[in-house]
Parts: sequence; C-alpha cells; structure tokens
Amino acid sequence: MTDTSSVSPDQRAAILTEALPYIRNFQGKRIVIKYGGSAMTDAVLKERFAEDVALLSFVGLKPIIVHGGGPQIGELLKKIGKESRFVKGLRVTDPETMDVVEMVLVAKVNKDVVSLINGKGARAVGVSGRDGGLIKAKKARPARLAHGDEDLGLVGDVESIDPSLIASLEERGFIPVIAPVGSGPGGKPYNINADTAAGALSAALGAEKFILLTDVPGVLDAQQRLMSSLSEEEAEGLIESGVASGGMIPKIKCCLGALRGGVPKAHIIDGRVPHALVLEMLTEEGIGTEIVREQAPGARPASKTLRGENP
Amino acid sequence: MTDTSSVSPDQRAAILTEALPYIRNFQGKRIVIKYGGSAMTDAVLKERFAEDVALLSFVGLKPIIVHGGGPQIGELLKKIGKESRFVKGLRVTDPETMDVVEMVLVAKVNKDVVSLINGKGARAVGVSGRDGGLIKAKKARPARLAHGDEDLGLVGDVESIDPSLIASLEERGFIPVIAPVGSGPGGKPYNINADTAAGALSAALGAEKFILLTDVPGVLDAQQRLMSSLSEEEAEGLIESGVASGGMIPKIKCCLGALRGGVPKAHIIDGRVPHALVLEMLTEEGIGTEIVREQAPGARPASKTLRGENP
Amino acid sequence: MTDTSSVSPDQRAAILTEALPYIRNFQGKRIVIKYGGSAMTDAVLKERFAEDVALLSFVGLKPIIVHGGGPQIGELLKKIGKESRFVKGLRVTDPETMDVVEMVLVAKVNKDVVSLINGKGARAVGVSGRDGGLIKAKKARPARLAHGDEDLGLVGDVESIDPSLIASLEERGFIPVIAPVGSGPGGKPYNINADTAAGALSAALGAEKFILLTDVPGVLDAQQRLMSSLSEEEAEGLIESGVASGGMIPKIKCCLGALRGGVPKAHIIDGRVPHALVLEMLTEEGIGTEIVREQAPGARPASKTLRGENP
Amino acid sequence: MTDTSSVSPDQRAAILTEALPYIRNFQGKRIVIKYGGSAMTDAVLKERFAEDVALLSFVGLKPIIVHGGGPQIGELLKKIGKESRFVKGLRVTDPETMDVVEMVLVAKVNKDVVSLINGKGARAVGVSGRDGGLIKAKKARPARLAHGDEDLGLVGDVESIDPSLIASLEERGFIPVIAPVGSGPGGKPYNINADTAAGALSAALGAEKFILLTDVPGVLDAQQRLMSSLSEEEAEGLIESGVASGGMIPKIKCCLGALRGGVPKAHIIDGRVPHALVLEMLTEEGIGTEIVREQAPGARPASKTLRGENP
Amino acid sequence: MTDTSSVSPDQRAAILTEALPYIRNFQGKRIVIKYGGSAMTDAVLKERFAEDVALLSFVGLKPIIVHGGGPQIGELLKKIGKESRFVKGLRVTDPETMDVVEMVLVAKVNKDVVSLINGKGARAVGVSGRDGGLIKAKKARPARLAHGDEDLGLVGDVESIDPSLIASLEERGFIPVIAPVGSGPGGKPYNINADTAAGALSAALGAEKFILLTDVPGVLDAQQRLMSSLSEEEAEGLIESGVASGGMIPKIKCCLGALRGGVPKAHIIDGRVPHALVLEMLTEEGIGTEIVREQAPGARPASKTLRGENP
Amino acid sequence: MTDTSSVSPDQRAAILTEALPYIRNFQGKRIVIKYGGSAMTDAVLKERFAEDVALLSFVGLKPIIVHGGGPQIGELLKKIGKESRFVKGLRVTDPETMDVVEMVLVAKVNKDVVSLINGKGARAVGVSGRDGGLIKAKKARPARLAHGDEDLGLVGDVESIDPSLIASLEERGFIPVIAPVGSGPGGKPYNINADTAAGALSAALGAEKFILLTDVPGVLDAQQRLMSSLSEEEAEGLIESGVASGGMIPKIKCCLGALRGGVPKAHIIDGRVPHALVLEMLTEEGIGTEIVREQAPGARPASKTLRGENP
Repeated sequence: MTDTSSVSPDQRAAILTEALPYIRNFQGKRIVIKYGGSAMTDAVLKERFAEDVALLSFVGLKPIIVHGGGPQIGELLKKIGKESRFVKGLRVTDPETMDVVEMVLVAKVNKDVVSLINGKGARAVGVSGRDGGLIKAKKARPARLAHGDEDLGLVGDVESIDPSLIASLEERGFIPVIAPVGSGPGGKPYNINADTAAGALSAALGAEKFILLTDVPGVLDAQQRLMSSLSEEEAEGLIESGVASGGMIPKIKCCLGALRGGVPKAHIIDGRVPHALVLEMLTEEGIGTEIVREQAPGARPASKTLRGENP
Repeated sequence: MTDTSSVSPDQRAAILTEALPYIRNFQGKRIVIKYGGSAMTDAVLKERFAEDVALLSFVGLKPIIVHGGGPQIGELLKKIGKESRFVKGLRVTDPETMDVVEMVLVAKVNKDVVSLINGKGARAVGVSGRDGGLIKAKKARPARLAHGDEDLGLVGDVESIDPSLIASLEERGFIPVIAPVGSGPGGKPYNINADTAAGALSAALGAEKFILLTDVPGVLDAQQRLMSSLSEEEAEGLIESGVASGGMIPKIKCCLGALRGGVPKAHIIDGRVPHALVLEMLTEEGIGTEIVREQAPGARPASKTLRGENP
Repeated sequence: MTDTSSVSPDQRAAILTEALPYIRNFQGKRIVIKYGGSAMTDAVLKERFAEDVALLSFVGLKPIIVHGGGPQIGELLKKIGKESRFVKGLRVTDPETMDVVEMVLVAKVNKDVVSLINGKGARAVGVSGRDGGLIKAKKARPARLAHGDEDLGLVGDVESIDPSLIASLEERGFIPVIAPVGSGPGGKPYNINADTAAGALSAALGAEKFILLTDVPGVLDAQQRLMSSLSEEEAEGLIESGVASGGMIPKIKCCLGALRGGVPKAHIIDGRVPHALVLEMLTEEGIGTEIVREQAPGARPASKTLRGENP
Repeated sequence: MTDTSSVSPDQRAAILTEALPYIRNFQGKRIVIKYGGSAMTDAVLKERFAEDVALLSFVGLKPIIVHGGGPQIGELLKKIGKESRFVKGLRVTDPETMDVVEMVLVAKVNKDVVSLINGKGARAVGVSGRDGGLIKAKKARPARLAHGDEDLGLVGDVESIDPSLIASLEERGFIPVIAPVGSGPGGKPYNINADTAAGALSAALGAEKFILLTDVPGVLDAQQRLMSSLSEEEAEGLIESGVASGGMIPKIKCCLGALRGGVPKAHIIDGRVPHALVLEMLTEEGIGTEIVREQAPGARPASKTLRGENP
Repeated sequence: MTDTSSVSPDQRAAILTEALPYIRNFQGKRIVIKYGGSAMTDAVLKERFAEDVALLSFVGLKPIIVHGGGPQIGELLKKIGKESRFVKGLRVTDPETMDVVEMVLVAKVNKDVVSLINGKGARAVGVSGRDGGLIKAKKARPARLAHGDEDLGLVGDVESIDPSLIASLEERGFIPVIAPVGSGPGGKPYNINADTAAGALSAALGAEKFILLTDVPGVLDAQQRLMSSLSEEEAEGLIESGVASGGMIPKIKCCLGALRGGVPKAHIIDGRVPHALVLEMLTEEGIGTEIVREQAPGARPASKTLRGENP
Repeated sequence: MTDTSSVSPDQRAAILTEALPYIRNFQGKRIVIKYGGSAMTDAVLKERFAEDVALLSFVGLKPIIVHGGGPQIGELLKKIGKESRFVKGLRVTDPETMDVVEMVLVAKVNKDVVSLINGKGARAVGVSGRDGGLIKAKKARPARLAHGDEDLGLVGDVESIDPSLIASLEERGFIPVIAPVGSGPGGKPYNINADTAAGALSAALGAEKFILLTDVPGVLDAQQRLMSSLSEEEAEGLIESGVASGGMIPKIKCCLGALRGGVPKAHIIDGRVPHALVLEMLTEEGIGTEIVREQAPGARPASKTLRGENP
C-alpha cells in the first residue's frame, strides 16, 4: 500500500473532487483495456489493477478487460514436454499446442483475473471468444509468410464480433474479462493475439477508449523522449520514418485500427506504474501516450490538460 | 483550491482507490443532507459543497439536499420594514412574514443552491414542500407555549410526506434540493424548521444516512472533547444529564427522530471543514459525530475505522 | 359558481358528450398555457382556471403552465424602497431588482398557482427555468436600444431549452408550472418575458397548442370586430398594416414564433371569461382568436366548427 | 340530439368542470356495465349509449360491456321454425337452440355494439366467454326445477373467470364487449344469463362499479317511490318482505352477488334516459338506485351528494 | 390417432430433433394460415389441425388462423327459407343474407375453431375484422360485372388493416382466429372472401409464410404432376398458359398478392393429409406447392431440402 | 444418424404432436442436467446430446448444463508427470493439481461442450462457479476421513449460490454451461464434485427437474430390474437396505438433496441411449428412474404415463 499519511484531509478531499469532471465525462462509456505485462505478473501491481477496475466500474464506467497469457503458456508446454516448431519466428499452433493455449488462457489466467477483481467487491465474469458467439475467427495470414511455408495451424484473426453477450453481462453490472480465443471454422478454437483482439473489440463495442497496458513508458521520439499525444497522422509517420520500431510497431498499428473503427482515443500506457489505469482515467496525470482520432474534438497539447480531455 | 502539488501520483491514485469500499457500500442509497451555516454563506465552502454533492451523485449515491434560510429572511424583513413579534422567544409568523420566508427560501436560497450544483456539471432541481404534495404540514404546537399565549401563525410541523416527486426526479438523475415549506390546511404555506424537515424526510425516504452540516465540530463530552460515535442511548443520556445543551439539543433530537424512523446512522458534522461531505462519505476521516441506531450492525469505536463503516 | 340549475339532465349529459371529439383529438398532447392578467388576480377566475387545468389533465391532455408576475413585483420593489431606472421605457434589472423578480415569480406567484391547482385534486409542481437546466438564457438585445444606451442588466432571452425535466414530471402525472427565469452566463438568473418564454417552450416541447390568456377579447380588425381565425400571413399583415398595435403586436409575434417552431395553432383568448380554457379546448365555443400554421391541415372559417378543429 | 342552445357558455364550462371530481375518483377503474333493454333497441338511445361509453373510456375509466340478446334470439328461432319446449317456464336449450343463441349473441348483437362504439372514435373488441378461456361454465341447476324434470340442456352458470384476455385488451386501450356464452364441459358453448354473467365478471375483474341498465326507474318502495340508495341489508329486506317482486328480484340478487364479490357499489339505472351512463358516472344526478356494500366508506343519503360519492 | 407403435425410441427422438432447424428458423415469426375445406369439416382432421396449431404456438411460432364458412352459410340460409339471387354466378349479399353470413362465420364457425384449439391446451381468441378496427372493407368491384349489372350488396374487399389488435393478443400468447368480415362504410359488415382476407392479412402483418389449406394436392403441371416449388414468374405463367384453371386461379393469385406484399413464401397444401401443417412447417416432407418470392434467398429444387428451406 | 426412412409422414407428424403436452408443461422451466459419462466421450452421443439441448431450448425450456471432467484430468496430470497422493481413496488436490483440474474443466471440457451446442444453432455460454460469484465454496469434510488424516487440499463443497449470472444469461436466451469449480476462501479455486454441484444448483435455481446422465440403465431393484419411479422414502430405503450400492449411492443422495431443496422430480437416466434427454423430456418413453418429491402432485406408476407426468 502506498503511504498516504503525509496527505492532509483537505488534500484528500481535493483529490477526490478533482476526479469529478473525468467521472462525469465517462459515465456509462465502455473502456476496453488490454491487460498484460508486469501488471499481470507482479503481485502488488495485480492488486492495484484490480482496485482500479473495480473503482472505474463503481463510479459508472464500463471497463472491459482483454488479457493475454504469455509466459504461462510456455511453462505448461515445457511441463508436458511439447516442443514448438517455428516458421520465420512464428510458433506453429497444432491442436495439442492449442489445447495448452486454451487451457492456460481461458482457465488459469482468465479466472485469476476474475478472482482478483471479485476480491475488490466488484463482480467480474470471464468468457472466451467462443462463448455465445462472441468472436468468430478466421485463419490468420501473416504478411511475412510466403507461399509454400508451413501452415501455422490454429492461429486466427478476428472475423466478426457479436456484442450481445457483453451487453447481457453489463446489464446486471458484471465486468467482462475476455480470453482472446475465437471460434473458427467447424467451431474449432483459434488463438488470437491479445492486442489485436482487444483493438477489434474496442471498435466493435463502440468503446470510448482503448487502453494498452505495456511495460514501456509510452511512445518515444527520436531523442527517446516520451510523446504524450499523437495524431493518427503523426503515429503513422513514426512507423514510416522508422522512429517507432520493434514491438512498438504492432502496438501502434493496433491503436490505429481501433481509431479507424471509431474509437475516439487509444492509449499506450505504462503498466508498471501502480494504479496506472486510475491515474490515466481519473486524474490530470498523463500516463504514456494517447493517439487521437483526427475527427475527435480535441487533443491535449504537450501536457495533458483538463481542457484537452474534456472538450 | 487546496494545493495538492505536494501529493505524488502514487498517493493520488491510492486516495482515489481508498474510496472504493465507501462507494460500493452506498451505491444507489439516499443520503439526506441538511445544508446550512457557514457552508451556505462562505464563498469557498459553497463551491466545495457543490463539488461534493456532484461527486456523490456521479459515483452512484443519491444525495437529497434540504436547506434553511436564516440570515437572508431577517435581511428582507428589515428591508421591508416589517418588525417581528416574539412569544417566549419564538417569532410569530403572520401571513406577511410567511410571504417573506417563502420568497427567500423557495426562490433566493433554493435557486442559488441549485445553480451552484448545476455549475459543477450535475443536474439539480429545486422544489418546495408544496410542490407535488411533497410535505403536508400541520400547525406546530411548541411545548414551551402555554394555553393563552399568542398564536405563532404559520409555523408548521411535518404531517406526512409523499415521496413520489422525489422518486420521479431521481429516475432521470436529478438531485432534489428542498425548501422546508409545507402545504398546510387550505393549501397555505407553513414554515417548517429545516433540521426537523430534513430529519422527517430522511425517515420517510428510507435514507441510508442523515447528515446535519453545522458550525460546530460535533457533539462534545463534559470535558469538551469531540465524541466520534454515540449509540442512541448515549445520545439520550447526554441530553438528560445536561452535557448537551443549547442548540445542540434539538439537533440531537432531530437525529434520534431519524434513527427511530429507520435511518441507520445520523451525523452531526462540521460544515466549516472544506469538503466535509466527501471526507465523511468517501474517506476514513471521521468528521464530527455519528449516532448509530441500536439495531444497526456495527458502530465505529473511538476512531472511525473501515470495519465500523462497512459491516 | 355559475348557476346551472336551469340546465336539464339531458342537456348536461349532451354537453359532456359533446366534449368527446376534443378529448379524443388532444389525448396525450401538450398544451402550453401562458397564464396572466385578470385570470391570475381575480379570486373567482383563479378558481375557474385551476379547475380547468385539473380537468384537462384528468381527461388525458398535458397542460403546461407558464406564468408572469406583473403587479406583485412592483409592490415588493416599492416595499423595499427600490426605485427602478428606465431606458427608453424598459426597466433596468440590476442584481437587487433581479432578486425581487425571482423571489416574487419563483416563490410567491409560482407556489400560489401550484397550490390552487393542487386544491382541485391534481398534482402540480412548480419549477424555475434554472431547475434541471430547463431554460438556458442569454442577454436580451432589445431592438429599440441603441449603441451607447445604458445596459438593461439581467434581462434575458431564451437560448435553449432542455425538455427532460418536463418529461420527467409528466411521466408520473405531475403538471409543470414554470416561472420564466432562465439560467444565464455564470449560472446567474435572467428575467425573461413570460409570453416569450411560453412561446419558446411550446415550440421546444412540441406542443399541440399555445394558448395566451389575455385581458382582451382577442385580435380585432380595423372595425374593432373580433377575428376568430387568422392565417400566419394574415396575422403578419395586421402588424404591417398597423391594424394591430400596442400590446397586441408582441403577443401576435409570440404566436407566430410558436407556429414557426412547429406548433400547429396558437390562441389569444380572453382570460376574463370564466373557464376560458375549458371553453376553448373542450367545447364548440370559440374564445378569442386562433392563428393557424399555413401547413396545418385545416382552419375554422368565420365560426369555429367541429370540422375545422378535428381535421 | 338534445338541444343545448339555451345553455350559456358559462354554464357549459361549469357543467364540464363539475365532472372533475368524478373523473378523478374513477381514473383507471373498471366499470362493468350490463347493456340491455330499450338502450339496446331504440336507435337514438343506442347512439347515446355508445357516446357515453366512448367518453368514459377517453376520460380514463375502463368500461367493460356485457350484453344480452333477448328478442333477436326469438326472432331467429321463429325464422328457422324451431319451437322451444319449456319446463316450468324455463326454455330448454338443446344444441340447435344453442347454435341460434350463440349466433345471435356472439355475432349479430355483439358486433353491432362493437360497431356502434367504434363509430364514436373509440376502439371496442367483441369477445365471447369462450375466447381465451374467459368464462368457464358449468351446468346451471335452477332452484325451481325438481328431480325428474326434463333437463334444460346447455344453460350454464359461471364456474370461473380468467381475466387475462380482458387485461390484454385494456393494455392497448380496447374496450371489451362480452357476449355471455361460456365454455362448458368438453368445450361446448353454454348460455349464461347476461345479468348473472355481468355480476360475476364485475367481481372477478375487481370492478369499482357494476351498473345494470334496465327499463325501469330503479328499485321502488312499497309506495312505488324510487329509492335512491340502499344498503345490502335493506336490499335483502326488500326481497324478504315481498316489496321487491317479479323481474326486480333477480336483478337485486345479481347486485348483491357483485357486492359480496368485493364490488363497492352496484347500480340499477333507467336505460330509457338518454346518456344514463354519463349522468350516473359524471354528474350529481342520481339515476335509479345504488346498492352499497356495508363496508364501503360512505353512501349517499336521500339525494345523491358529491360527498356520498367521493368519500 | 395414427399408430406409431412400430417406431423405435431412437427413431422418435431422431424425428423430434430433425425439427430443430425449422423451429429455430421460424422462432417468433408469424404464419398466416387460411383454414378451410375438409380440414374444417372432417372430425379427425379437425383434431389434427388443432394439435398442429397448438404445437406451432408452443414451440415459439406465431400462427394466425383465418377461416371461411362455406357450407354452413348455405344451410342456415336454407333453414330460414332465404333464396339467394345470383348475378353472373355471384351471390347477391343483401342485409338479411349478410346477417346470416356474419352469424355463421363470427359465431358458429369461429368459436368452434377457438374451442378446438383451446382443447389442446393453447389459448385462442376469435375476432371479426370489425373488432378493434382490424379490417376496414370497401365495396368489392368484381371484374366480371358490367356497368348496369345488379349490385352485389355487402360484398367487400380489404381496404386497410390495423395490426394492433393482433399484436395485443400475441403479447400474452393468445392465438388469433379471424373471421373474414370487414367494417365497411358506416360501420356496416362486409363479407370478404376468406382466401383474399388471409392473403392481405399475411402481407399487412409481415408474415413469414402464408399457407392455404385446400382439398387438392397442390398445383399441378400440364401432365397433372404435382409441382413442389414455383417462382412467382412460373406461377404467373401457369395462369397465362391456361395450365392452371378453375378454382386454382384465384388461389394462385392470392399467393402472388401475398408475395408482392412482402411475404417470402406462400404454400398451397393438401389439408386432407392429417397434420399437414406440422409436416409442412417442421419436417423435410414437402406438402403441396410452395411459391417463392423472386428476391427470396433460396427455393427448394425438385424435392424440398433442408438447404432450400433454411438459406 | 438414426435411419427414420421407415417412418411414414403420418407417423412423423404424430410423434411431433405427441410432444405437445410435455412442451406445454415445461414452458419457461429450468432443467438442470448433469452431463458426463459416455454421453460426453462418444462422438455420436455428443452430437445427439447437443441436438437435444438445442431443441429443448428452442421449444421454450431452459436447460442448464453442469459437466464433470473425469478422464481428461488424469491424462493431463500424467502428461506433466504429476503423481497424485490418495487418502482413503480420495485424491489430494494440492495447488498444482487444482491448476490442472481447473484448466481441464473450465477451458478444455467446458468450451468443447459450448462449441458442440453452438454448432446446433443455439447459443451457449460457458462459465465457472468462480465467475460473477456464482458458486461460493467451502472446504469439504468427507465423512470417511478421520481426525489426523492428511488434508485433501482444494476439495470443496457448495456453500452458497448466487443465481444472478444465470438469470442474466437466460434473459437473452444463452444456455449456461457450468464447470463445477467454486470460489473458496481467499478467492482460491475449489474442485467440487459435478453431481453435487448440479444437485445444489438445481435446488438454488428453482429447477423443475434435475437430470443425471449416467452410464447405467437407472436404479435397479434386488432382482436387477429397472425401477421406473421411486418415492423419496423408497429411494432412502434402497440405500438403507443395501439394495443400492457402490456409485449409485451418492447419485441417489444427490437426487434426494435436490428434492429436499424443492425440485419436484430428479431423474437418473441412461446417457448411453442416443437422444436420452429428448426421450425423457418430450416423449412417453421413460428412460431410467425418476425419484419424486413426496409433496409432488403425482408420480407415474409402473410405466410412465402422460397422466403421471402432467398432473
């Protein structure tokens, strides 16, 4: 627990009421959050994340969590002595591997997240994209694969999303926690990249914000300085110019996809900061980088201002 | 504005999430607040009060404001050169005086409160007890008057309350702001003491809490130390033993009436503290004195603890 | 009470059933009524008016009352010794004057109207335009003022209307009674002419009729004969030709504004006739003058006929 | 049409507003009306009746019509050359007779009533007791028949009533018009006396009033003077003492049955008076005789007073 | 009862689950069924029909029955000694004849159908087109009549249909059974051909299917072979080429009218087959002939396949 | 697919309509089905089961599936080289084992069942008892363990059930598929026996029936003959007398628990019979054994009759 004993009652109350304009603006709005990285592995950060989600839910926002699975999948594969084949760096997901992926994502990881949030007094419900027809998947066709390369197996892309299960859960105040497994041809499970799934869900669900929790401070410029706000065009420029590189490129592309799908703002934030979500959503503090849809009414300039946030 | 620059982002977020259990416990609950004293006259405290009410409303509570009018009534009486007669210290409210009382309470004061709250982005609606049959009044019979004393005129007590106007306003998220004027025999306006009206409303509306904003720190013991929590019995004892005296007696009686009407807790808090409402409702800080219904599941001991508050 | 002893039971029943086509046609329709003049000051006419409003409400129409305040404002100004300055015949409304205006309109007058109607068994609720964001006001710019003239102070025009408070009250059968005070820049109260406010409300609320209760028989032609029905064009002609003059001009303009805002018919009727409202709404008797929107399906010719009324 | 030209506008409006307390008191209440006699055969009275029903419906009451068939059944039996056998004065209803009864009641008479009411702008729907399980019938066992007498055939009594069809029609504002044919053992149609059916329906539907339209002025005392109000006990006394005789006895018994089933008031009124229904329901005029449940809060004394009607 | 003792449990269950795709596809869809011919006169077929309607209703479809009256009208006319005049083969329907038509259709036949269905545990309600403004009729103008021919009297065509009564009945699960009598000018009953009425109702109610129960196997080709599926164009061709003749022509025209009104498929099926409705709706068996709207997504080829039915 | 070519159309339709009384009686009722054994492992039986569940859902029943996991848990434990310790025949469920249990039940098995049902056109949603607070678990205390025996770890019993997640899913027509994992102290997953969980759910959800799919023909008497119907008392007698033994004892106890919790009938049926569910629910065929609550209105005698089923 962060020590707040030095904060006076006056200051406490001031901080609470400073959240008012943010709470007002996001009432009843869906916020899709990609949950992953340290925020999902560090014991303290996990508790902070769950508190944040519960708080956002209680003050009237509608958080929707999409999580990945990462290291735990590798661990179980190793345990059962399954070795993965790779094609140009991409893991081949044969049915046995897919079983492991689904078991880790849909059971182990998903229910841990659900349990964490429920421990804060909120009511989360974990679902897979195969439940209630939520995510229909199609076979992924990664650009880097050439004709003749080995098939990647059960790796999927989002084909379509049916929002009715999410709406049904929200009606009674449940917080959806979604494992990124889709229902492919023949009803078979397909593994979908969690960032991709979250971006597609934020567009299909008409989210007000798409938030990517990462293990970096945000998007950096050529001088390695944090950029607090980017237009779509600027974000595309960073990729083309090579300033953005490595793992940041797919994350920016995911955000751009969400914006094109109608989401007003996407955020790449630093999940290593405790309470990163609440700081981003309910305080003046800017965490990481926001990317703003061109048509969106207003973006914060250099520093995040209330004006920028509440046009 | 309170300076919060010394508070770190970590601490800010911690303070926000510390409000979670309170927000959860009071979701959808009615909180009747008697508004008066310095909190209604001091320019800074007024802004803080309005922010607090708006915040409580946005995070899912249902605040209901009942206000008095005090000094402004005297000012207008003086302006029009109306001199009041008094009987054993009680002002005789003849029709001309009642006109002034109603004009000040229902128009001037009520609409200022409404406007203040609306300025914070919430939506308040001011009503009189004469609107929609909200408060039926009967002639008050103060104990201190003897047979043969002059009649006090249009001074009333609550006879009955019809909650349907309040329910109708709450359905669309309006915050009711109530002027304590009732509809007496023949539809005539009757002036009702604001503390009394607020206490009766809190019982009739099934409120979770009744909060009296005052200009004192709370209830004091014989050594003039603040008592943070009292049972009904203890509160009655303070009156019988004479420890409580003067203006504190009717306030305690008002609270006891609300408790007997089914309200679990009544609070006499210090309205001179900025954000007194938010501190009382959403933080661990105890402001003033709580009086707890005997059957209520748990009271805080010497210091207000989360446990005491969230049984 | 009008003596009806000479009316036979047969005739009584006939008169009641003759109201059937009117009741049928106006089921669930909003009727905005500007209440003022003798109908608001004469003790007998007040009772008749309240009976009419209650009856219209019980048979399924939705009356909405907008009242002015006239003489009572002057009386209170005199009582407190406040002298008004005038600029080209218009009263300067400084803050102190505005206080008086608001107190008289929102408290004294408004609650008297509410109480009158409630006395007939209906349930009225009085609100100001400042409640629930009902009327946003802007500074009025009267045409007759020239650059350099003294500012009129808190005199306002309607900027926008938010109908949700009215809808919320109607849902549970409450009759809204509206005082024409708007919320101007900074939340300050602005005094709006009652005719103007009523006309704007009738358009914004999609009223079926706008009825102005006046102290004249209606619109007169050059020979001082009552004109029972006018088209928009004819009404404009009366102003241009100078046949309509004095206080009638703004009343006709108000009606034309309502028609342009989509109200099918506006009526200038004689409030000195007892039960003027019920006669106009529920009988074949034409009271005063109707002005009919060009696109409206049918207007009554010389005499008001059922056909004209129920196209 | 009754000539109302001698009635002044003042008087017209007064008569309309005098209906206010009645309209208010019966809002949303069910009024079961047994329709028969001259009011169903005289061309002018039929129009007046339909206007009355439409008016009651538009001002917020819920009229439910139950009709008989009388002369038209005999006419068709004669036309097809069917001769009826009688046992102690009661007609034997064999299947062929029942066919005639059902065809006349459910088609001819029922749809004429429906059409009349619809002609006044209301929306009536005719149903038989066999529709939607509305009336379950059992074989009638008339007291006057002795063991060994010939069986009466398809003559029935009400066994049970399922109100859901009526509720379903009322939800969209349809006025139910009910033909008194029930569904007996094996789904066969049974002929039920219309007065009896109407009385049973008024009890089962929780009606506020049960009104019998007859061709007499009401219940008469030993001196042949109209009795305007009777208690249950007084009504029973009239039968026991022999003051009530002939066709009046079953009518009084029908009313007493309705009262015992919880209906507060039953009325035997003179259907030969034009607008008898509206006069009884919406004016001070007492038409015929009311019989009042003992526990009912208040009965009118000699003359029907408003006080008596609106306790 | 059909003997099913030779069917094994396995087969029974298989047959039930084979109904699944049909039940799924027609959930909540309206199916308008013209009921007539042997299915309405043969005692066994009547029971089977009622079971079918009840079953369709319980598994979630919305059957709506429209019936004719045929032989029973002639019988009653004969009984009362009424001789009909004919003009070019069409019966003149004078008011006395119309009385007979209405009595037979609306009472006798309609309530027998209602009673049959209710006997299977469903809840049917019989209505005439005159109830609740369901069918407005206009005078029919048969093509074969020339100027100067005698007027046919009360023979009508559908002018308009108000679906609200049907919707109201369906809301509580009642099955509407409709007698084809319309409300003509002056509210007078008009006799409408049952096939025509059913076709018009299927279009106005947005039915998914229009089913004509007949006494023929379906539409036959020039070689007298049953044609199981026809396009609109093919159906029109059969009439133009003379392959379809006699009574089949109006039936095909009726179907084409329904298709033009937006109904996807119309069926002419053999009502002499027990359970014809259930076979057509819930099994792979094709009964009779379907005519498919051109824009409809898919028609079955020679034999009815699941694919054809469930595009 | 079962060959049904020998079944005539008549017989097909007869079999479908014979389901009518069952469909009618179980409309909107919850049926809790414990799914396991061969029906969950045999490829053909799985398809038949999914068809049955989809059919029951489409015809208006509310199936709720609770599944076990059996062999697949052992397989994965073996794969990861985890050896289980046993205490008096009960497996010790340490955290690592629990991980495997949860992954198999909540992901692998649950989503396979969901996918199977969705493949039949219905919409299933899989949840764990940890989702939305559905099943709160407490540590199990098996009777056969003595003080001092090794702790069994995360083996749980049902402490309480919150039905709101199930109600939320049913509102939009989703079929709940429940993995029997509960949320124990500290939010930790606890493994609950699937039969036990299903029995407790059937009581807590107010199910009309509790159906156990097993791999035996039902309950056998001392002569090894199938007993088609048992009272509670008889069932208890079978256990006491030792006629029921081995695995049948806990199954009977489970049923008795459901009956005591208010479920009218529990069934132990033979899941090896294709379409066992549809045969039991929608045909006269009795599959296995029913146990009937004493207070239940009627039980089938030796052979299951319609009367017994539809009291």
